[in-house]
Amino acid sequence: MSNPYPFMQEALQQAHKSYREGGIPIGSVVVHGDQIIGAGHNQRVQKSSPILHGEMDALENAGRRSAAVYRACTLYTTLSPCSMCSGTILLYGIPRVIIGENRTFLGEEEWLRSRGVEVIVLDNSECYELMQRFIRERPELWNEDIGE
Amino acid sequence: MSNPYPFMQEALQQAHKSYREGGIPIGSVVVHGDQIIGAGHNQRVQKSSPILHGEMDALENAGRRSAAVYRACTLYTTLSPCSMCSGTILLYGIPRVIIGENRTFLGEEEWLRSRGVEVIVLDNSECYELMQRFIRERPELWNEDIGE
Repeated sequence: MSNPYPFMQEALQQAHKSYREGGIPIGSVVVHGDQIIGAGHNQRVQKSSPILHGEMDALENAGRRSAAVYRACTLYTTLSPCSMCSGTILLYGIPRVIIGENRTFLGEEEWLRSRGVEVIVLDNSECYELMQRFIRERPELWNEDIGE
Repeated sequence: MSNPYPFMQEALQQAHKSYREGGIPIGSVVVHGDQIIGAGHNQRVQKSSPILHGEMDALENAGRRSAAVYRACTLYTTLSPCSMCSGTILLYGIPRVIIGENRTFLGEEEWLRSRGVEVIVLDNSECYELMQRFIRERPELWNEDIGE
């Protein structure tokens, strides 16, 4: 059977790349039609950035886009989006978000749904296991990333 | 009478700086105790960034900080914070936000209040007039910044 969400593998590759770099293993891609227009991963360690979560990095790498483009995009992220990333999804009117897993961290999925965003959670075990391994190894870094 | 919110002038200077650079005139400072730890302005034009609103730029410039620092900060912004910036305020547990004006754009002030953030709106005429002048001059750029 073919994978109905092939772009999640691309987001996961971004997460693995960040892990190999010593960073937080959360990745994201922004897809317009059948093309990735932005890919990224958490950059807290790599760029000392408090705002470049995976989703934010993917959107930053997609560059300046018109409202019409965002409104035809799907955002893929390996982990449930926090309030910052959810607010960004709403700012740009991105209508659809595909989430790798939300067992490690449950973000603002209900807020997104209440504002009309389609939210699909895959409960992908590879996304989950990568985060669990990272949190065992670097709990302080994970807490910093979620403001705790 | 002394100005009870002197840091708003610093945020406004950031907004004017962005305007002079041909950018969107929204500025912000993050204050810890009586010290500015991050100052910034909208960077859509200057850095071609869709995520560096004034508040995000100020937080990025403040760098990586512990949760304890954020929880003792006040964020000043010349314009009511959009969903992205409001979500970031909540992510880091910033307890107090001072807003220059919200007549040009009303952000997620109610969401912030509902989550326990103290929100004070100054209705500063200088903040308002600068935004009005900018929107008359560059309406398309303004719409891009708010995803419209």
